[in-house]
Amino acid sequence: MSNSTNPHFKKTAVIGVGLIGGSLAVELRSEGLTDEIVGIGRGRANLETALSLGVVDSVTTDVAQGVEGADLVVVSVPVLKIADVIRMAAPVLTPPCIIMDVGSVKKAVIDAVEPLVPEGVRFVPTHPIAGTEDSGAGAAFKGLFKDRLCVLTPTDNTDKEALEAVRSVWRLAGSNIVEMDAVTHDRIFAAVSHLPHMIAYTLVNTVAAAGGDETDMVRFSAGGFRDFTRIASSSPEMWTDICVMNSEFIVEMMDNFSSRLEVLKRLISRGDLDGIKEEFRKAKKVRDSLISEGWDEE
Amino acid sequence: MSNSTNPHFKKTAVIGVGLIGGSLAVELRSEGLTDEIVGIGRGRANLETALSLGVVDSVTTDVAQGVEGADLVVVSVPVLKIADVIRMAAPVLTPPCIIMDVGSVKKAVIDAVEPLVPEGVRFVPTHPIAGTEDSGAGAAFKGLFKDRLCVLTPTDNTDKEALEAVRSVWRLAGSNIVEMDAVTHDRIFAAVSHLPHMIAYTLVNTVAAAGGDETDMVRFSAGGFRDFTRIASSSPEMWTDICVMNSEFIVEMMDNFSSRLEVLKRLISRGDLDGIKEEFRKAKKVRDSLISEGWDEE
Repeated sequence: MSNSTNPHFKKTAVIGVGLIGGSLAVELRSEGLTDEIVGIGRGRANLETALSLGVVDSVTTDVAQGVEGADLVVVSVPVLKIADVIRMAAPVLTPPCIIMDVGSVKKAVIDAVEPLVPEGVRFVPTHPIAGTEDSGAGAAFKGLFKDRLCVLTPTDNTDKEALEAVRSVWRLAGSNIVEMDAVTHDRIFAAVSHLPHMIAYTLVNTVAAAGGDETDMVRFSAGGFRDFTRIASSSPEMWTDICVMNSEFIVEMMDNFSSRLEVLKRLISRGDLDGIKEEFRKAKKVRDSLISEGWDEE
Repeated sequence: MSNSTNPHFKKTAVIGVGLIGGSLAVELRSEGLTDEIVGIGRGRANLETALSLGVVDSVTTDVAQGVEGADLVVVSVPVLKIADVIRMAAPVLTPPCIIMDVGSVKKAVIDAVEPLVPEGVRFVPTHPIAGTEDSGAGAAFKGLFKDRLCVLTPTDNTDKEALEAVRSVWRLAGSNIVEMDAVTHDRIFAAVSHLPHMIAYTLVNTVAAAGGDETDMVRFSAGGFRDFTRIASSSPEMWTDICVMNSEFIVEMMDNFSSRLEVLKRLISRGDLDGIKEEFRKAKKVRDSLISEGWDEE
């Protein structure tokens, strides 16, 4: 796929060589988009894994040392930490370096990061919608982003050329790219991603509590419950951060959901068969449409 | 596995030859537990499918005609219809015929059915925890119940010998059998099965509504949302019936869930990181335990 219009980076620094950062490093290398990749992180063991797997060419735990001379910096750390690492990197970054993050909340990240970025250095906020249950550099693989959605949320301050370069990177990684403003992004993902996580965690706790000390209800769960609550195994630390960074929209969506659940409960309480069935039918129609129109299947 | 202590039925009648009824017919035949199987249903096309696949030996749409002379009657119809078909069958049933249902709600079914069963005919309430996304006789297969849970909910009126025979049938079909009273069953499944369905339907409707007419939010959903809402594709008719038949416990569990979600919302609203993380950690611990201890994996 490589051609003369593809971007090229002499030195790429990946801060946070986990599943996302590591897999993006693999794509950058296999598409020939960079000469060198430095992996930066706090955990020595993970960095050694990244090095031994050839995900990166060298590693360091020192952010400033690692990013020095880089023309692309990929920030792939928990959302609450993005501004911190960029603050550490900023003093040694030189124009026209591009910084891209991959955080799943955008408005709060942009507000925190933009004031930290040195003149001439170009920040591009992105959110690849990809992931597996595994984490760490050992889980990184080529193809993670293929046919997955990647949302770009440029602001008025975003450099157009840098935006195009980042767009090319994600396109070459196989992503379907969508551009929108950060607030729209945060509201959409509060609904389709953050709310389901709040519900899954709460459902598991509800069922665990309902049995009391005598009955281990969870033991009687079947496949449906397991699929349904799989996301309750997600990292508590990561999701606490997301809650804090996108609290306004998450609370809005939780309110919407609670009101609707209350309506359904009243229909059930008074035995309104038609009302109940109508709610279920509406939902089934929407859910069934995902099978033929979703991004995953495109 | 067949041995002299296994039950044997001259004529088995399966009312409702769908995924569950059809798959149980397949097990009865392959384990040599019956000489003959009659399939009974309202839909001619489905009955013809069952016949052509060899799931049953003959078919009829007439319940009374189909069950005549049967020593085992399997009732595998939607929970709200179980009493209706037993009422139709009752006049021609002769002792010591065994009737077993496979409904996912037990107390309301037992209360409706027991008064209808003729003297000497023996009713055994069961609930196999099995299913796939497919339905109808064409979806039936050997092994559906293997390593799955089957709950038996005998009452004071349940004949002990009939209970043992039914237990043997499910054991030979590969199920892990658990016995409990109907009320305990209904409360547990309100939590681990019915509540998740109420939530999944409501979540899909919430997300669909949140985007309004302009934004098709559902389009941005990724794998997590898809797994999470898969059960919202379940039959609206079947789930409306379940809501009506187990409304008391479903409402109780919805209340429990709503209170807990409200607590989480308040933690998020006031940015209580420790409180949020504690909720998530508790849930993750319970959910992770399913991987090693669940019935599915045993």
